[in-house]
Amino acid sequence: MTAIKSGTLFGVGLGPGDPELMTLKAARVLSSAHVVAHFRKCGRAGHARTIANAHIRGDAIEAAFEYPVTTEIDFRDEGYVSAIRDFYAASAASIISHLQDGRDVALLCEGDPFFYGSFLHMYDRIKATHPVMVIPGITGMSGCWTAAQAPITYGDDVLTVLPGTLGQDALARRLRDADAAVIMKVGHNLDKIKAALRDAERYDDAIYVERGTMPGERISRLSDLGDCAVPYFSIILLPGGRGRRIA
Amino acid sequence: MTAIKSGTLFGVGLGPGDPELMTLKAARVLSSAHVVAHFRKCGRAGHARTIANAHIRGDAIEAAFEYPVTTEIDFRDEGYVSAIRDFYAASAASIISHLQDGRDVALLCEGDPFFYGSFLHMYDRIKATHPVMVIPGITGMSGCWTAAQAPITYGDDVLTVLPGTLGQDALARRLRDADAAVIMKVGHNLDKIKAALRDAERYDDAIYVERGTMPGERISRLSDLGDCAVPYFSIILLPGGRGRRIA
Repeated sequence: MTAIKSGTLFGVGLGPGDPELMTLKAARVLSSAHVVAHFRKCGRAGHARTIANAHIRGDAIEAAFEYPVTTEIDFRDEGYVSAIRDFYAASAASIISHLQDGRDVALLCEGDPFFYGSFLHMYDRIKATHPVMVIPGITGMSGCWTAAQAPITYGDDVLTVLPGTLGQDALARRLRDADAAVIMKVGHNLDKIKAALRDAERYDDAIYVERGTMPGERISRLSDLGDCAVPYFSIILLPGGRGRRIA
Repeated sequence: MTAIKSGTLFGVGLGPGDPELMTLKAARVLSSAHVVAHFRKCGRAGHARTIANAHIRGDAIEAAFEYPVTTEIDFRDEGYVSAIRDFYAASAASIISHLQDGRDVALLCEGDPFFYGSFLHMYDRIKATHPVMVIPGITGMSGCWTAAQAPITYGDDVLTVLPGTLGQDALARRLRDADAAVIMKVGHNLDKIKAALRDAERYDDAIYVERGTMPGERISRLSDLGDCAVPYFSIILLPGGRGRRIA
């Protein structure tokens, strides 16, 4: 009896949303993967699966891992940490069982696998025992600044990427200190982010982007946005280039 | 006599270096462009042209714009600013003459067109008078952290992107304040960057990446690098995720 050679886990960066912004390498790997897995919110199709759709083999085995809780719960909450830890452990076990049977697994990742995101929890659990290969992707923020026609950094600009979950004072302090900034995870943090931008005297420069490069894309000056609720994965941009352009 | 319809300037992000990390969209636009232009150092083939090679039409008109000065001169130097301003004006005029004759121009951009880089000087000169379309690309830094197998940001990390041209104190202050950091434009700033990393007590975490995802790729702990000169476009990474992972 021969030992079965382990399959490889591919962390496949799919880019910001437009399926044509996938790389040639991602498309190639998807078209040969035996198993295609992705994370998604309970009951939703999942952005990642939608982006990848045209490249997945008809005979691929599919695995959808549904988050047990929303991403808007504070990561310091004990119930959240416990539920999400069990969820990631079970997802990794499912992937590993395919790898042990010799099947390659393509785990679909919106944006870039090594830039935030759930892939990292699989990577940290699996890389020591099985082959893992990561294919970078265009980040959501690159997609957003391109869609907004807003070059983000010029010359010697400093760029700061901030989670909207930070406190208002911490946000304001860092925004004052940045030439260019990107604020991720907006959602119910919107009012606090607006206040921090006002504190830092950068509110009028801010651009709001929702579903950048995807159907339903929405781009506006933050000051024109109004007071409605916005999705968690929307992004706020503060473009750089102030006083540094070679005219 | 009918007026000729203007061509479109495409800012084509080519990604970090591996030609397979180009997007499907970039490959499609390249395969139909009448004119392919790129910036390069005097006498060199140019990374961008090399990455794009397989997708350029045999009958494309090619334009190479050769920098008159090195990128390692301080941008506050008057002679540099004057020479580079003339160079960008002449490059834009060359592109515009093609657009006016109705030809689309694909301007090749390493990485992402809106994330630093020379494309922005063309964009700012041409967008008011001619159609411009930008295709985002994977940034050089994404390519580097993937090649180094170093996830850059977890959970609620703050990421700071710093030009190595900043002073030692400014670098150290910002490095102390960052969960994750990327230092661009290393070159002759290497010794100063090392000193700033030591000041911030982050030297031992730093990873050096040269030619990430390309032939000749070189990755090492910064502390193992030795004292030889390094290229301007090498990158130093400080991965995040300290104390924030869900184990």
